[in-house]
Amino acid sequence: MINVTVWNENRHERREEAVGRRYPDGIHGAIAAGLAEHLGDRVRVRTAVLDDPEHGLTEKVLADTDVLTWWGHQAHEEVADEVVERVRARVLGGMGLLVLHSGHYSKIFRALMGTTCSVNWRDSGDRELVWTVDPAHPIAQGVPHPLVIDAQETYGEPFGIPQPDELVFVSSFSGGEVFRGGCCYRRGHGRVFYFSPGDQAYPVYHHPDVRRVLANAVLWAAPPGGVGDPPRNVHIPVGR
Amino acid sequence: MINVTVWNENRHERREEAVGRRYPDGIHGAIAAGLAEHLGDRVRVRTAVLDDPEHGLTEKVLADTDVLTWWGHQAHEEVADEVVERVRARVLGGMGLLVLHSGHYSKIFRALMGTTCSVNWRDSGDRELVWTVDPAHPIAQGVPHPLVIDAQETYGEPFGIPQPDELVFVSSFSGGEVFRGGCCYRRGHGRVFYFSPGDQAYPVYHHPDVRRVLANAVLWAAPPGGVGDPPRNVHIPVGR
Amino acid sequence: MINVTVWNENRHERREEAVGRRYPDGIHGAIAAGLAEHLGDRVRVRTAVLDDPEHGLTEKVLADTDVLTWWGHQAHEEVADEVVERVRARVLGGMGLLVLHSGHYSKIFRALMGTTCSVNWRDSGDRELVWTVDPAHPIAQGVPHPLVIDAQETYGEPFGIPQPDELVFVSSFSGGEVFRGGCCYRRGHGRVFYFSPGDQAYPVYHHPDVRRVLANAVLWAAPPGGVGDPPRNVHIPVGR
Amino acid sequence: MINVTVWNENRHERREEAVGRRYPDGIHGAIAAGLAEHLGDRVRVRTAVLDDPEHGLTEKVLADTDVLTWWGHQAHEEVADEVVERVRARVLGGMGLLVLHSGHYSKIFRALMGTTCSVNWRDSGDRELVWTVDPAHPIAQGVPHPLVIDAQETYGEPFGIPQPDELVFVSSFSGGEVFRGGCCYRRGHGRVFYFSPGDQAYPVYHHPDVRRVLANAVLWAAPPGGVGDPPRNVHIPVGR
Repeated sequence: MINVTVWNENRHERREEAVGRRYPDGIHGAIAAGLAEHLGDRVRVRTAVLDDPEHGLTEKVLADTDVLTWWGHQAHEEVADEVVERVRARVLGGMGLLVLHSGHYSKIFRALMGTTCSVNWRDSGDRELVWTVDPAHPIAQGVPHPLVIDAQETYGEPFGIPQPDELVFVSSFSGGEVFRGGCCYRRGHGRVFYFSPGDQAYPVYHHPDVRRVLANAVLWAAPPGGVGDPPRNVHIPVGR
Repeated sequence: MINVTVWNENRHERREEAVGRRYPDGIHGAIAAGLAEHLGDRVRVRTAVLDDPEHGLTEKVLADTDVLTWWGHQAHEEVADEVVERVRARVLGGMGLLVLHSGHYSKIFRALMGTTCSVNWRDSGDRELVWTVDPAHPIAQGVPHPLVIDAQETYGEPFGIPQPDELVFVSSFSGGEVFRGGCCYRRGHGRVFYFSPGDQAYPVYHHPDVRRVLANAVLWAAPPGGVGDPPRNVHIPVGR
Repeated sequence: MINVTVWNENRHERREEAVGRRYPDGIHGAIAAGLAEHLGDRVRVRTAVLDDPEHGLTEKVLADTDVLTWWGHQAHEEVADEVVERVRARVLGGMGLLVLHSGHYSKIFRALMGTTCSVNWRDSGDRELVWTVDPAHPIAQGVPHPLVIDAQETYGEPFGIPQPDELVFVSSFSGGEVFRGGCCYRRGHGRVFYFSPGDQAYPVYHHPDVRRVLANAVLWAAPPGGVGDPPRNVHIPVGR
Repeated sequence: MINVTVWNENRHERREEAVGRRYPDGIHGAIAAGLAEHLGDRVRVRTAVLDDPEHGLTEKVLADTDVLTWWGHQAHEEVADEVVERVRARVLGGMGLLVLHSGHYSKIFRALMGTTCSVNWRDSGDRELVWTVDPAHPIAQGVPHPLVIDAQETYGEPFGIPQPDELVFVSSFSGGEVFRGGCCYRRGHGRVFYFSPGDQAYPVYHHPDVRRVLANAVLWAAPPGGVGDPPRNVHIPVGR
């Protein structure tokens, strides 16, 4: 049983009518439903949002989370540094983390990457094709080649990330841009997967193939040996 | 002074009139001219072709080569295994190697990668956009983003290579495909750069930006400490 | 159920009395016993040796193998190129491969790596300490830090390999040498793990912690989606 | 001409008599002398210390720095976050950074790595052997194999870092520990090299081979195209 916490900023949905109609249960609701659909009783899924106390990411909730998914966009700066640090420590201790779409610019992703995580972008409803460059990767299993998203925000290179440990997907857009949209990292004892498709302005989290990717990624990111403390300096006794 | 040998299969040019008109001095001639243009007296460039004795890659020539460029397509199987092994030993000893376009399927590239190096492909004159994903890389200096090639053969993922040590360029094509078209590897003491643009059916090696990439790549691949023997098993004397 | 084939050169055991006493069932027998011990009915283990017809690695056997382990030393050159190519195609199609100790110089490992795979070595019974550099890696679970081997052949750097995709273990020896003794690679659809401990002159494959590493590695290398054909060039129909 | 700034905490030297005698010009003085020795007029070297205003790392100084070296130990927390952020932005814009020894736990290194950067350690004057695992790497040129340091603090694995982009050196210690002591990273447009040898309690920065490594690393880390702004999100005009 994998305990998943789906985190969402949850502002667009409540403030913009069109987004609210697109995601009546919030982006978090759609993501959670997709995971339940694919993974059934292999996961226990809860959700948490920015406006919850401590953003819903208390010590208690994190202690009970094996994999955390993160969606944010317009309110990255409102996430408390203390919570970011708490999440980071948990990832370094083994918790899996899925960073989604505009989450590339979240405090937590930038803290774990150490770089700007910046992108080129354009919002003109391009068709996105998500190509698998690593067909044997667990996250690519059952995913069509290409995965077609009829309309999406465009993200383009250069993507300001460290070289991924494993590059799984690369997208192209109608306008011709390319983007390394599926990237795996190992940081401390934890695994991090960034996946670019998904925007409040498009129904991407209802897309069955996108849901498949997220379900695969939860399985990939789940820590086989559980989550512990992050590594720390250790004094070796003389005469070991 | 970097000694460069530009190797070419040189069959299309001699057998197909249109290719011969496009590359009157052969693809090797166009590549050599581009290097001379950009690098002037920093390089000494010679050429060699399949139908030369020992394919023009004698022990003597290789001993005098710091960077070798490789273009082949329809006659990969005619390259003698002995010569392939000689080139491979030289790369492992430090010689730089640039593998170009359909050279992805050459014996030498497959021998150094250990994988199939297979691609998806279509020849329908798509526009290729070559995007820089690593703007600080020496090979990307002075290269436009994107580099635009009006018409090209399409190569698509999955590309059957090991994960590149450094991924510099990713291309998209009008048909929507993407391709990791600029990949760096270190193998033994040598450096290998694969660059996908370039086909006998298009004047790609006359393109000033493509020539810039190749010139940059020669500088990147040149061994700072010269070329020696490939590594070998070494017995450590007891009591060192 | 994972089908494992344990391959062994099986010459030292039959020709040298001391080795035969150390490994009465052959090195392959000891390895197979260790896997059965740890993995029970999660695996079906068979063995094959150099002197079997087709080295015991017929098309039929390979078609029924998910993970192959490889031990060889003095007779690398006797392994038929055709069998090496068959094994390589199977790895590129998804079969896991564990390359053990002196197998670093086997034809199959060198063919998959593309490099010399050479080492520095000394045989003077040094104590080897195997340190985990990646504690969250599946192959390191349950392995002591360090894993202590009282007497072993010494392997030292430089090890003539491509940079590992994941470096799991680094060893030191009483004489002071270090060696990247636990290296993961992904090649085509398959996974390759090289593990350096193990020599005919020492009872390393009876060591419970070494057996634990090999069992972990079998689980890691097993292809989740089964084994298929290796990738190949694919023509994309125009107008896809 | 490469502008190098050698930064040092400079506390041990002033507070502990033995350290002051060992490094009469400070650790920074010894490092600067070593660079001048090897690189002559290819570099212009200045120094800066913690107790300078803004730690000596004003906007003006950084704007004139191509490569920064960093030594700190007991006062990491006294380095102002604002200066750390300034240095980080400069690295992401292209400045090279050499992080030395106990600098593994500096704010700047941890900010760029995103991980704990923790080590196991023991201070008992072990002999350290620094082995080259990548003999063709520019930083390893002219460095003996092994580089011998008669007495040093011991650092042991696990080292809490992301997998290095290039691993150049691995050390062993008399007590048997191993450590990935020479690690290259590319972050944003900048290059980062971590090198573990060097401690206030030992005359390591007077060691000619250590000085050679640092000089090589300065050349490797210097940005060929100069330093600019760090990458940032860029809006792509529709209809590009």
